[in-house]
Amino acid sequence: MGLGKIAILGGGQLGLMLLQAAADLHLECAVMDPDGEAPARAFTAEFVQGDLKDTEAVLAFVRGARAELVTVEIEHVSVEALYQLQREGIRVYPQPEVLELIGDKTAQKKFYLEHGIPTAPFWEVGGKADVLALLENKTVQLPLYQKAGRGGYDGRGVVALTTADDVERALDIAGYLEEAAVAATELCVIVARNVAGKARAYPAVESMYYRQANMVDYLLTPSHLPGEILEQAAELALRVAEAFNCIGLLAVEMFYTAQGQLWVNECAPRPHNTGHHTIEACATSQYSQHLRAITGLPLGETHLREHAATVNLVGAEGHSGPAVYEGLAACMEHAGVYVHLYGKKETRPFRKMGHVTLLGSSAQEVAERIAMVKQTLRVVSKRGAA
Amino acid sequence: MGLGKIAILGGGQLGLMLLQAAADLHLECAVMDPDGEAPARAFTAEFVQGDLKDTEAVLAFVRGARAELVTVEIEHVSVEALYQLQREGIRVYPQPEVLELIGDKTAQKKFYLEHGIPTAPFWEVGGKADVLALLENKTVQLPLYQKAGRGGYDGRGVVALTTADDVERALDIAGYLEEAAVAATELCVIVARNVAGKARAYPAVESMYYRQANMVDYLLTPSHLPGEILEQAAELALRVAEAFNCIGLLAVEMFYTAQGQLWVNECAPRPHNTGHHTIEACATSQYSQHLRAITGLPLGETHLREHAATVNLVGAEGHSGPAVYEGLAACMEHAGVYVHLYGKKETRPFRKMGHVTLLGSSAQEVAERIAMVKQTLRVVSKRGAA
Repeated sequence: MGLGKIAILGGGQLGLMLLQAAADLHLECAVMDPDGEAPARAFTAEFVQGDLKDTEAVLAFVRGARAELVTVEIEHVSVEALYQLQREGIRVYPQPEVLELIGDKTAQKKFYLEHGIPTAPFWEVGGKADVLALLENKTVQLPLYQKAGRGGYDGRGVVALTTADDVERALDIAGYLEEAAVAATELCVIVARNVAGKARAYPAVESMYYRQANMVDYLLTPSHLPGEILEQAAELALRVAEAFNCIGLLAVEMFYTAQGQLWVNECAPRPHNTGHHTIEACATSQYSQHLRAITGLPLGETHLREHAATVNLVGAEGHSGPAVYEGLAACMEHAGVYVHLYGKKETRPFRKMGHVTLLGSSAQEVAERIAMVKQTLRVVSKRGAA
Repeated sequence: MGLGKIAILGGGQLGLMLLQAAADLHLECAVMDPDGEAPARAFTAEFVQGDLKDTEAVLAFVRGARAELVTVEIEHVSVEALYQLQREGIRVYPQPEVLELIGDKTAQKKFYLEHGIPTAPFWEVGGKADVLALLENKTVQLPLYQKAGRGGYDGRGVVALTTADDVERALDIAGYLEEAAVAATELCVIVARNVAGKARAYPAVESMYYRQANMVDYLLTPSHLPGEILEQAAELALRVAEAFNCIGLLAVEMFYTAQGQLWVNECAPRPHNTGHHTIEACATSQYSQHLRAITGLPLGETHLREHAATVNLVGAEGHSGPAVYEGLAACMEHAGVYVHLYGKKETRPFRKMGHVTLLGSSAQEVAERIAMVKQTLRVVSKRGAA
């Protein structure tokens, strides 16, 4: 092939789906993950268990695999190791500088400001005292979000300061306060940019919330928003990828505010959970697209082939232990239903155990399929409810 | 999951694509193949190199893997081992009796006759003397095919007796003579039948020939034939799967004769090279469908999402050695092009190195894409032409 072996940092579900796509062109991959039972492990001949933040471990893994190319399925990796590998002549996409910048949320916000990329107004804070002072002197007003500059992940390092009572819960950590985009629509546009600098955006995906639980209920595409807004969102995402000079995928999360503005929230330079549907719903899956981008191949088309939604399959409340997929066969009886299970042995409440992509010829058909899946499929423990 | 580990006999490209589909539901697989560099090897944690015809080797592989289910990507395996595994309580799909029957082409022809399944008229022969005698006494007339009962594979064990000069080349082997379906259209209908006995057929695929070289040029679906003929073909294929009582996929190759008859030619109880397009073109890929069928899940839909064709990517004439995919990037610049490479290190003239699926909104669009791929993509040797 001449495309060379790829080392993937992270063997979770995103790594697993990268492997599935890599097999199309028979791009050999080696995978490293701290979890010896990581989802990707069963689907690669080369798996190394190790800490992705450990510089020496990452160096040993990539050198041992004789990889020509390194990529990630998670941002929380040793950027130092990636810089070193780059110096050794190994191609690293996303580039270490992109991961470094995105790894510091405060730096990311400043970057948007410097590059004229619209984002929610924000104020840097050193800790809780700064938060209280900014509120005191009325520089800022509730509702706000406080976000840690580093170490935030999957909801950690973020606190919503909505009412005066919440202020006590302010984090004593460096980061920033951000104006909350009230009643905004959440969109994500995934962009791919290849080695030649060519870029393409996927149609925006809208996050639909359970308002009560403040939890994403399902992801929908095309979004409900007017076409011109979606075009603006795509253009904005492409502009962000260009500003980062990022190679590979960049998932650009944004808000469409009640005032009609698009604000970039944050970015992830890797395959993204809002892009699972691209496997069945788009002309090129995000996983194939990432591999095309980083191996120097031309990008594939990104258009939707049908209406689509993704429902995350999370562990049922009250269930911890060996996972059982209740209703799997019943769910798969239906048309337009694509179940993906990540092979995690143990379920826990709200743990991401899989996802289901629903396709349909209309938004209405997709909506009916979403309802069916939610009524039918549940991840419980073999041991029963706790 | 409770779906259990799957042992796959054969790790060629069909095994590789089974693995890709197995990863959707995280069905763990172990793979055995005689070739230590088999296409599937890089994409499974469990690979055993071994002879698939060696009963003890197959038994050791399946028992060692602690598989609950055994399947095949090739028919040429130890049926004896499969019967033994079945006796040990391991599920084997396709069933050993199906593989045994299909492994003997003469028995297969008789089976069609007994079950009222239309097939080309045939005459059993013990060897060359029988061929000559049948011609002599005018029981048969040219053009004919002579087929070996056993051991035929990929064109071996088949000889076309078209003119009187060909008769000298008749095989001195047990098998049968068959009336050649002159100017017939070749179709293949892939059927899936699950543990519950439910079955579904994919839309028929038509093999388009280079008439000069007697070589398949590309596979097309939907076929050019009228819809009612295609419906009859689907019904016939479902009837054949039912007659075999086969679980899993059954690819039913047939002729639509110049006289307007459908004749079943032969069957393969596994994923089939005429079904590669189902990955991108159909609602459920044949690989996912096979896994659904054998694991006891309901079958997925089989309809075409777009017009499709598959071009086999074979080694260029005059080229033997380390494979290089000339024009790969140029080919992937185009819309509707899905390249699959099997990762075979060495190319040889006409060796199957990959395939390209072309999708389009019309037969015309697909035809243009076929032409583009043929002009653009070539598998050559790094060493250059011999």
